[in-house]
Amino acid sequence: MHNDMDFEDFLKQRLEHISERRPLIHHITNMVVMNETANLTLCLGALPVMAHAREEVEEMAAQAQALVLNMGTPYPALEESMLAAGRVANRAGVPVVLDPVGAGATAYRTRLVHRLAEEVSFTVIRGNAAEMAVLAGESAEIRGVESLSVKGDVESIAQHIATQLDCVAAVTGVVDTAGDGKSIVRVSNGHPLLGKVTGTGCMATTVIAVFLAGGEPYLEATAAALALFGLAGERAADAGGKVPESLPGTFHVELYNSIYWLSTERKFLKKPRVELVS
Amino acid sequence: MHNDMDFEDFLKQRLEHISERRPLIHHITNMVVMNETANLTLCLGALPVMAHAREEVEEMAAQAQALVLNMGTPYPALEESMLAAGRVANRAGVPVVLDPVGAGATAYRTRLVHRLAEEVSFTVIRGNAAEMAVLAGESAEIRGVESLSVKGDVESIAQHIATQLDCVAAVTGVVDTAGDGKSIVRVSNGHPLLGKVTGTGCMATTVIAVFLAGGEPYLEATAAALALFGLAGERAADAGGKVPESLPGTFHVELYNSIYWLSTERKFLKKPRVELVS
Amino acid sequence: MHNDMDFEDFLKQRLEHISERRPLIHHITNMVVMNETANLTLCLGALPVMAHAREEVEEMAAQAQALVLNMGTPYPALEESMLAAGRVANRAGVPVVLDPVGAGATAYRTRLVHRLAEEVSFTVIRGNAAEMAVLAGESAEIRGVESLSVKGDVESIAQHIATQLDCVAAVTGVVDTAGDGKSIVRVSNGHPLLGKVTGTGCMATTVIAVFLAGGEPYLEATAAALALFGLAGERAADAGGKVPESLPGTFHVELYNSIYWLSTERKFLKKPRVELVS
Repeated sequence: MHNDMDFEDFLKQRLEHISERRPLIHHITNMVVMNETANLTLCLGALPVMAHAREEVEEMAAQAQALVLNMGTPYPALEESMLAAGRVANRAGVPVVLDPVGAGATAYRTRLVHRLAEEVSFTVIRGNAAEMAVLAGESAEIRGVESLSVKGDVESIAQHIATQLDCVAAVTGVVDTAGDGKSIVRVSNGHPLLGKVTGTGCMATTVIAVFLAGGEPYLEATAAALALFGLAGERAADAGGKVPESLPGTFHVELYNSIYWLSTERKFLKKPRVELVS
Repeated sequence: MHNDMDFEDFLKQRLEHISERRPLIHHITNMVVMNETANLTLCLGALPVMAHAREEVEEMAAQAQALVLNMGTPYPALEESMLAAGRVANRAGVPVVLDPVGAGATAYRTRLVHRLAEEVSFTVIRGNAAEMAVLAGESAEIRGVESLSVKGDVESIAQHIATQLDCVAAVTGVVDTAGDGKSIVRVSNGHPLLGKVTGTGCMATTVIAVFLAGGEPYLEATAAALALFGLAGERAADAGGKVPESLPGTFHVELYNSIYWLSTERKFLKKPRVELVS
Repeated sequence: MHNDMDFEDFLKQRLEHISERRPLIHHITNMVVMNETANLTLCLGALPVMAHAREEVEEMAAQAQALVLNMGTPYPALEESMLAAGRVANRAGVPVVLDPVGAGATAYRTRLVHRLAEEVSFTVIRGNAAEMAVLAGESAEIRGVESLSVKGDVESIAQHIATQLDCVAAVTGVVDTAGDGKSIVRVSNGHPLLGKVTGTGCMATTVIAVFLAGGEPYLEATAAALALFGLAGERAADAGGKVPESLPGTFHVELYNSIYWLSTERKFLKKPRVELVS
């Protein structure tokens, strides 16, 4: 892991890489955040495509630079499309990110997350504490798609998943924790208003996917993505310096502004707070 | 029904209850407003979940504190999910709200609304005048999902539905009318710009569902929800006091800001205009 | 084609017509832009309806004043609904607009666009250069839904499609080119930030559909729609005169404000830049 100054450089390099290459990010995602994550991808300088029909997902995934599988509004036909796209992406060496939205909330979602984890090899899995605990086989309390409490600490959960599934596992919340089975990184950028806009977890997943399109090292790319998204939240909360502080509607708008501004200016008014724990 | 001062207290108590309990609001809703109604639910302090697969709706509905069935973009598989979730919610005592979007616009939607009304017991049904007239068996003119004219007055329509289906029936428009078969309440908060943003009817339905999570009395909870949504529209129209007046894009953003502000501050700059008619 | 002053009058007449008649615009469209294009339709003074079930699309299309078929997130059941609605609209004399989103990106989309073009008679087809090249049988490079390069010039592509399919063909980009097989019109309003918001192509298609509801001449109606949308982009970029210039989140909000403002005020601060090429 880089030290602070190097990490900022790493983050800037990824942003430069994205804006030069304009990677295609194939999303098979939920109906709630399709527009939002597409816009976020564009603000980062990458190109989004949403395609979910079994008839085309393999061809689309094969030409993408990263694939997002997000199970926020799942149904059986979408499940088959996710599996097909995931397998093709695996064969083609395209990084794949899983967002296990609501795992644990219903038996169907719990079965689904385990099936995806078995049949697709993920580069990164990002979820909240309850979703990740469920994936790790721990007990957790989830209300809809909101994590209430988990048994076990998030670092162990992340490292358990990372080791079992040979991936980077990111547990996000007030502080984000990402592990690859060896190292653990903690990212503490962000703002409470991120909890007042729907789909900000899904957005974080999209930012990770865009960053993975730049290749390895994946743990650092994940940490950089989470730091950038958190920094955008911090900037959005004060609405680019305006008074009074953002309320959720304005904050949502400023989140796109901030991702775009940070991606194009590549100046960070506040520091990425990324810490190597072990 | 409470008098004015008591009604404001009732409204504040509901808002407090929501922010303390954070009820889960299960939506089986249309593709146009999924993001918007999820965000509105969060701005109110409640938790949204959108889940529509037959495989999981029963389990999700059973753990929710309220269920929304919104038929804005219906199709047969969704119809089955709505019926299944509705029946489970009925058995579990979870309040269920119906939004009969576009009833009367096509034979399919008219059949659907009647089937839902027969097979599910609704706590509240909220629609525009034409949709509610169609449900009441009256003739009405509807263009797409917009009410043009109805035969019969909205109070009779509301009371007819309320009596037949043993629910609260709310007919919304410039003035909102809600009845439970005995009393009729009129709510006259709101702003014309609400007609320039898609899905504001669906949003009103979501606010009602959130308020129902606090339990009975349901007619007053419905009136309180409609008053709050109207007050938010009034605040959004002057963009929190900014000049010039909102245009629809800004208004849409300020609507979330205003719902959040009213829910957290619980100060009403303008009065809830709620009147007991009979 | 009108000269400059006449063209501005034509544009204003269409806007007046829309606000007086409030035409119903039936969309069978993708899941990414449903909310956005519904809001845009309302900002123009028209009425949107999103309905895609095979059970109701024919009845809905028959009563609409224009029909949009947008293949941004296609799947087989939606394909059948598009074909059914398109045929009914053809018989009823309802103008139909095709948006061939992502044609060329996968074999499925390429087959779909050809099938739609064979079985439905379109009034206007609007796409980016790559999508339209694919429809014209030319080679093109497309990344997801983004046009990278095409063989052949856009004017020939437009006129080829227009002649073969007896429609108006509009190829949009930095400059928009529309042809009807005889005349070619170039529209050069717009702003680069339109490329930083998802679905602005789909939005342009919606504006065209709204304008077609006013009847012939269709080439001029298409040019007027594209000019209006470009003018809205120009106004949105400086956020109604605010400093600093819009970032994408604010731009997106101001786009609705601007469409509404231009539609209701019918004053154009900047000129529609529409040029008859041949």
